[in-house]
Amino acid sequence: MPVHPTLADVETDGGQNLRLAEANSPSSKVLRLPESEPLRLACDQLLAPISIAYETYGQLNADKSNAILICHALTGDQYVASQHPVTKKPGWWSTLVGPGKPVDTDRFFVISPNILGGCMGSTGPASIDPKTGKPYGLNFPVITIGDMVNAQARLIDHLGIDQLFTVIGGSMGGMQVLEWAASHPERVFSAVPIATAAWHSSQNIAFHEVGRQAVMADPEWCGGDYHSFGKVPRNGLSVARMAAHITYLSEDALHRKFGRSLQERSKVTFSFNADFQVESYLRHQGSTFVDRFDANSYLYITRAMDYFDLAAERGDVLANAFRGTKARFCVVSFTSDWLYPTRESREIVHALNAVAANVSFVEIDSNNGHDAFLLEEPEFFATIRGFLTAAGTRRGLKV
Amino acid sequence: MPVHPTLADVETDGGQNLRLAEANSPSSKVLRLPESEPLRLACDQLLAPISIAYETYGQLNADKSNAILICHALTGDQYVASQHPVTKKPGWWSTLVGPGKPVDTDRFFVISPNILGGCMGSTGPASIDPKTGKPYGLNFPVITIGDMVNAQARLIDHLGIDQLFTVIGGSMGGMQVLEWAASHPERVFSAVPIATAAWHSSQNIAFHEVGRQAVMADPEWCGGDYHSFGKVPRNGLSVARMAAHITYLSEDALHRKFGRSLQERSKVTFSFNADFQVESYLRHQGSTFVDRFDANSYLYITRAMDYFDLAAERGDVLANAFRGTKARFCVVSFTSDWLYPTRESREIVHALNAVAANVSFVEIDSNNGHDAFLLEEPEFFATIRGFLTAAGTRRGLKV
Repeated sequence: MPVHPTLADVETDGGQNLRLAEANSPSSKVLRLPESEPLRLACDQLLAPISIAYETYGQLNADKSNAILICHALTGDQYVASQHPVTKKPGWWSTLVGPGKPVDTDRFFVISPNILGGCMGSTGPASIDPKTGKPYGLNFPVITIGDMVNAQARLIDHLGIDQLFTVIGGSMGGMQVLEWAASHPERVFSAVPIATAAWHSSQNIAFHEVGRQAVMADPEWCGGDYHSFGKVPRNGLSVARMAAHITYLSEDALHRKFGRSLQERSKVTFSFNADFQVESYLRHQGSTFVDRFDANSYLYITRAMDYFDLAAERGDVLANAFRGTKARFCVVSFTSDWLYPTRESREIVHALNAVAANVSFVEIDSNNGHDAFLLEEPEFFATIRGFLTAAGTRRGLKV
Repeated sequence: MPVHPTLADVETDGGQNLRLAEANSPSSKVLRLPESEPLRLACDQLLAPISIAYETYGQLNADKSNAILICHALTGDQYVASQHPVTKKPGWWSTLVGPGKPVDTDRFFVISPNILGGCMGSTGPASIDPKTGKPYGLNFPVITIGDMVNAQARLIDHLGIDQLFTVIGGSMGGMQVLEWAASHPERVFSAVPIATAAWHSSQNIAFHEVGRQAVMADPEWCGGDYHSFGKVPRNGLSVARMAAHITYLSEDALHRKFGRSLQERSKVTFSFNADFQVESYLRHQGSTFVDRFDANSYLYITRAMDYFDLAAERGDVLANAFRGTKARFCVVSFTSDWLYPTRESREIVHALNAVAANVSFVEIDSNNGHDAFLLEEPEFFATIRGFLTAAGTRRGLKV
């Protein structure tokens, strides 16, 4: 059995191949750690071999002091500022990251790994399990945000970087930022957690559970072993995405986008067709998502988010998580985000204040809901640019 | 073919029988209108024969001036204040309705019909289609809130009541209240729309669409013809209910009930088991719902709610809906209801004010979310009692 089995080892039908190819042989850079360098997971299992797929943008400077680690959200990936190999769309943060942009790749060396548990080349449930020569499926261990961060640390080691200038990310990316600051405080010069929380709320756990049940209810999920049967739980994953998508938008954003507008006709059809534009939009969101994302990855990543609770691991006192940090923080929330509302960012800020950390907090006025962190919000972009510039001066980076 | 085929005409397995029995031969009173008295629906089809299953509580007075019509919500039924024949639970509003209670059955004659499209004895998709001798399934026409109200009007005719003292209901029940006031103004002395809206928002349409897609994605749904195959789309309907249930609670209520509390163990299991109490709770909500509700009814009723828009039918001016009314209104909303937030009740109040209607508006301080209208909220109960007492005096009812 090869240490890193290739797709040729798996027999699947054609429809599976594109997704499985990216999961096992990504178009991006990839760090393949040998079997002899396993990762000890929070569940106490050893996972090996580990692959971390990643992209980089810009140049690492001589003293390796200008590295920015970008942590992605639930359905994000390493293609932050370059074309996605499956969808052919521009990178998901290409408005924020690039030459002359707020995360200026003329100044900074940007590293964006696919998370552990993902499906774009980092080890996850769609990766080949060396024990069986088939995708892990549900044999993949349940991982945590801490496990994802520890895997990223291996990549940072590999790149020879002692301390990251900045760790930045939104939503689940923000959880990783907080975990970095808490678990690897000496390696973080500054941190930008955006639209996130220090623990996942019961309402958010509830929405995730609905999504997981939708996937698992789909007979094509095959108990997680759909790859072996050449199937995809399209309907279940699509419903999960539709439900989640509602939570990413504000009610106001949905109302502005769609209101009660009807599709082509000006009258309802008295049927279960997608009469309303919002129905058509959601169905589209569901079905396109299935084309680019692995259903089991969706289960594992949502689970990791549900488990995230920086305080519970530290005597139920969030401030304890930040006692070791010397980082400068820029905490960002959005007014209309009801998935990670501003009060959850305030809890982070209060905990940071309790340990006299260097923290600035900005609540951005936006009516785009949680999705705002992915959009070109001028005040948000100005905040990121300003913070990185000031922190860069402190770090002694040349302008 | 008998005008009102009985269950004996259908061949199904045992599991179907209880639900189908209540759908076709309810435990409650039932008005069976003959084939010669069809209902013309908004879609322009004629529906016949029509059954309206209903319960009554209290006594109709001599001049028939003390009748209160209770309109139920999406998954409610006629068993307002009496035991549910399937679940054996107390009536869903038994805390509000009964002798000496705010809706005092010692004073008022309470009528509570199952809605058209429902599955507890009024004609709906689980009813036997006289053309085929099988449950309608998707051959049932798509109905509207207006159709439901027109069917109720037949029942009120049958009971010999010219004018209802009050029409009251929450959520979709409140939509029916508004429709009664708009379409049958002369028959409504007072109206109490609770936790509702004059049109369904795009976010609410979106959540309904997720639920419908979950049902339809279930292979056991069989294109709506599951009765014929002796199947039930359990998984799909359960996921739909889970998603909807989150919207019925406030985030605060979920947090208070569950927070991030774990099930039996004090540690997570690193699995997809229901580690968190909120997961276990939701799974229970989903699976028990399937035992008492028909999946196709769920599709049809959510569709009727999505279609509801009192303004669109009247030149996009909501006030036009209320030009004919002389009723006294008591509009009630709850502070933590994010499904039908207070601002949607305000829109109703503004429209009523625009036609100089007699309206009082009460926003009840509650952290129980949309579900508050089903709970014993003291301020809410006092409001209902006070309004009905004052309106009763105006109507000349003896105390």
